[in-house]
Amino acid sequence: MGQPLDTIIIGAGTAGLAALREVRKRTERYLIVNEGPWGTTCARVGCMPSKTLIEAANAFHRRLAFGEFGIRGGADLKADLPAVLRRVRALRDDFVAGALRATEDLGEASLSGRAVLLDANTVDVDGVRYHADSIILAPGSRPVVPEEWLAFGDHILTTDTLFEQENLGPRVAVIGMGAIGVELSQALARLGLEVAAFTTGHALGGLSDPTLNAELGALLRKEMVLHTHAKAELREVAGGIEVRSGANRVVVDQVIAAMGRTPNIEHLGLETLGEPLDERGMPQVDPQTQQIGRLRVFLAGDANGHAPLLHEGADEGHIAGMNALAAEPTRFARRTRLSIVFSDPNVAVVGTPFDRLDPAHTVVGAVEFERHGRARAALRNHGRLCVYADKGSARLLGAEMCAPDGEHLAHLLALAITQKLTVHQLLGMPIYHPVLEEGLRTALRNAARHLPEVGESDLAACQPIGVAALE
Amino acid sequence: MGQPLDTIIIGAGTAGLAALREVRKRTERYLIVNEGPWGTTCARVGCMPSKTLIEAANAFHRRLAFGEFGIRGGADLKADLPAVLRRVRALRDDFVAGALRATEDLGEASLSGRAVLLDANTVDVDGVRYHADSIILAPGSRPVVPEEWLAFGDHILTTDTLFEQENLGPRVAVIGMGAIGVELSQALARLGLEVAAFTTGHALGGLSDPTLNAELGALLRKEMVLHTHAKAELREVAGGIEVRSGANRVVVDQVIAAMGRTPNIEHLGLETLGEPLDERGMPQVDPQTQQIGRLRVFLAGDANGHAPLLHEGADEGHIAGMNALAAEPTRFARRTRLSIVFSDPNVAVVGTPFDRLDPAHTVVGAVEFERHGRARAALRNHGRLCVYADKGSARLLGAEMCAPDGEHLAHLLALAITQKLTVHQLLGMPIYHPVLEEGLRTALRNAARHLPEVGESDLAACQPIGVAALE
Repeated sequence: MGQPLDTIIIGAGTAGLAALREVRKRTERYLIVNEGPWGTTCARVGCMPSKTLIEAANAFHRRLAFGEFGIRGGADLKADLPAVLRRVRALRDDFVAGALRATEDLGEASLSGRAVLLDANTVDVDGVRYHADSIILAPGSRPVVPEEWLAFGDHILTTDTLFEQENLGPRVAVIGMGAIGVELSQALARLGLEVAAFTTGHALGGLSDPTLNAELGALLRKEMVLHTHAKAELREVAGGIEVRSGANRVVVDQVIAAMGRTPNIEHLGLETLGEPLDERGMPQVDPQTQQIGRLRVFLAGDANGHAPLLHEGADEGHIAGMNALAAEPTRFARRTRLSIVFSDPNVAVVGTPFDRLDPAHTVVGAVEFERHGRARAALRNHGRLCVYADKGSARLLGAEMCAPDGEHLAHLLALAITQKLTVHQLLGMPIYHPVLEEGLRTALRNAARHLPEVGESDLAACQPIGVAALE
Repeated sequence: MGQPLDTIIIGAGTAGLAALREVRKRTERYLIVNEGPWGTTCARVGCMPSKTLIEAANAFHRRLAFGEFGIRGGADLKADLPAVLRRVRALRDDFVAGALRATEDLGEASLSGRAVLLDANTVDVDGVRYHADSIILAPGSRPVVPEEWLAFGDHILTTDTLFEQENLGPRVAVIGMGAIGVELSQALARLGLEVAAFTTGHALGGLSDPTLNAELGALLRKEMVLHTHAKAELREVAGGIEVRSGANRVVVDQVIAAMGRTPNIEHLGLETLGEPLDERGMPQVDPQTQQIGRLRVFLAGDANGHAPLLHEGADEGHIAGMNALAAEPTRFARRTRLSIVFSDPNVAVVGTPFDRLDPAHTVVGAVEFERHGRARAALRNHGRLCVYADKGSARLLGAEMCAPDGEHLAHLLALAITQKLTVHQLLGMPIYHPVLEEGLRTALRNAARHLPEVGESDLAACQPIGVAALE
């Protein structure tokens, strides 16, 4: 109790810590409350442990290219999955320790417990009431698991429990093929597990362009069994869990639920704010201010259902932290959309996705990487990339890809889209040789052929030479 | 002989083929003459075979991370160097075949032989004279080898002969540590050879920033013996070639001369043009037109000594090809400077190099990759990157790096510099997590702290959270 505070932050994950940073610049009269383990979703159970697993998996997978490169002994390599998982946890612990340092010197300003809103200025933490001029809600999200699957106990894993396992498999099913499902199914398959993946839709890794979904699906099917348009049903059978979808059935040791994440808002007391809530119990949040209605209450990070991505959560916490201490909230422009799946090849969607474009006003440029020189030298010549540009202005609108080094090509495109560049302006940059960016250039030139000419050459539209070794 | 032609292209390498592409759009009255093997330097002896060697070397080198990842058996892997070299040649042949297709349908318009200028409109090819309205000279370059080293015969290798070897070593010396020396010395060391490298200067891989030279030098010294400021002298001794520089001496089986490339202009008859020549016999070439003086003679590609890089050679051929058929040459803007060395970590110089900046008006931002989250997960956490910005305008001027995924970071920076962006504008792009681009962001934020403030936050200047797992 005591004196009213300037602000209370509920949740010490990525968004909460980003808010905290701004709050601490402005006041000492704040409280940060966290329920459950401290440390971010990213560091504990998200980006970092998954990337650590993927790096080991890809390093091991590379042995399949060794014979062609002239390296002997690749067939005798073994992935020691318990050791791989131990390293994941060791590095994870180090990343978590880094996150914990952000709150370790806060003393009484940080509190463990469940925070519940009583109104727009009052928070109850395990029976104690705190009053504040503003409140920043950043309670995060958790993996979706169907209620009835809880009966299968340890056989059901999510990212919350997967990395805690001493060992896995040898047979696993992955249910859901968004970013997390695609990353984990491929990494586990590459580490030697038998993987069967199921997804109710046809989109893989968030791709909306059907040519790219087909490409990624074909590549994943070389490494696992993949069923799309397949709603999976589970039952316990002798020797494991049977996963069934129509005529398809497989018995596995573990089922990984990768069906998305749901905001942790049920117990937050949002209904006490007097703002309309949708059927999920979610209020309207202004993505420019993070504000709920006209209240001095801000909802940031995964919990607002906007985009469960670290860089978006960090921006939202940053915005909420500034606005919670300001007399009037400032409206901030949000960044160009960017999402990346760290599969191999990388999947990425930048700017406007294919399925939100107006086909009548859009030009598509594409490239296949199968014959790309550098990708062939590296034995990584798989994948496809599409760029989308406005037919009238030639401005880049978006891109989707399933491409080698796609994570980097996506950032280059994100800068171009942020700067509102045309296809021709992007073609004005230097592209070295031999690099994967030459593949992007091929797609851009391909798009340029369907756009109005901009002159014989401004060197920005320097044409391909038509020679494989030069492109 | 016969009717005068519109243009004659001398040299069918990258620049010559780029010129040919433009020429063929405009006229059928042309001739392309090539001396020696057809196929580009890039495909035959340059970019492509070296990258193929490097990819094998890096794949093999990765075994050193296997134990840490949890992969067993890495110590038993063997690099079969003859097999590695066979693959290099097989892929090289395929890339060369691609280049040959650009000229295979030309019939009498293509000619093998030595072309010599008789004047600005006349070329002699092995005794036959051809007249043309314009001439495009693209005779390329060759590796520098000191005259006296020719006595060592097969013991001296260059990129012209290296990839032809059935086997190499086990002891090699690399003389010269520019782009080619750094790439080859590291690749061969990684493939198991004992490598001793010598360079007369201190710059490695073209880096001019001393902090980066120190970083790269320290990394290379883990894999080879490296002597800087060391002029190497050779003599034949029992069992090989002794390479001596001051007190340092080493006996090796082969010496790789990587001392740069020299333009193939000696026998071209440039002295018949009536234009002033410098001490190398080189006329002044306008980099905006490729024109020699006011003549309708154009010098493009490696041969003009501007920058022996494929993408520059292709641009120069493109410019020369257009201008050779135009009534008046057009002046073309050239692209932002970009050079990349495909070492690990990648070396790159973008825009204005460190040593050409005015320190009084430049702000430097730097990042070390040792503690970078993604780089640690990948066991690739080595290197450093510096960005240079104008103190007054905050505009990015250049960057140098020795950084993981540097080839991609360099392209992103090249686009930013081409678009004349400020540090703050570049910080306005989305950066995903966890990616190496976050390291670049750290360097940009580091630079921004020395630049005039641009406001509390435009989200472009969103500050770091101070948490390792989030950065």
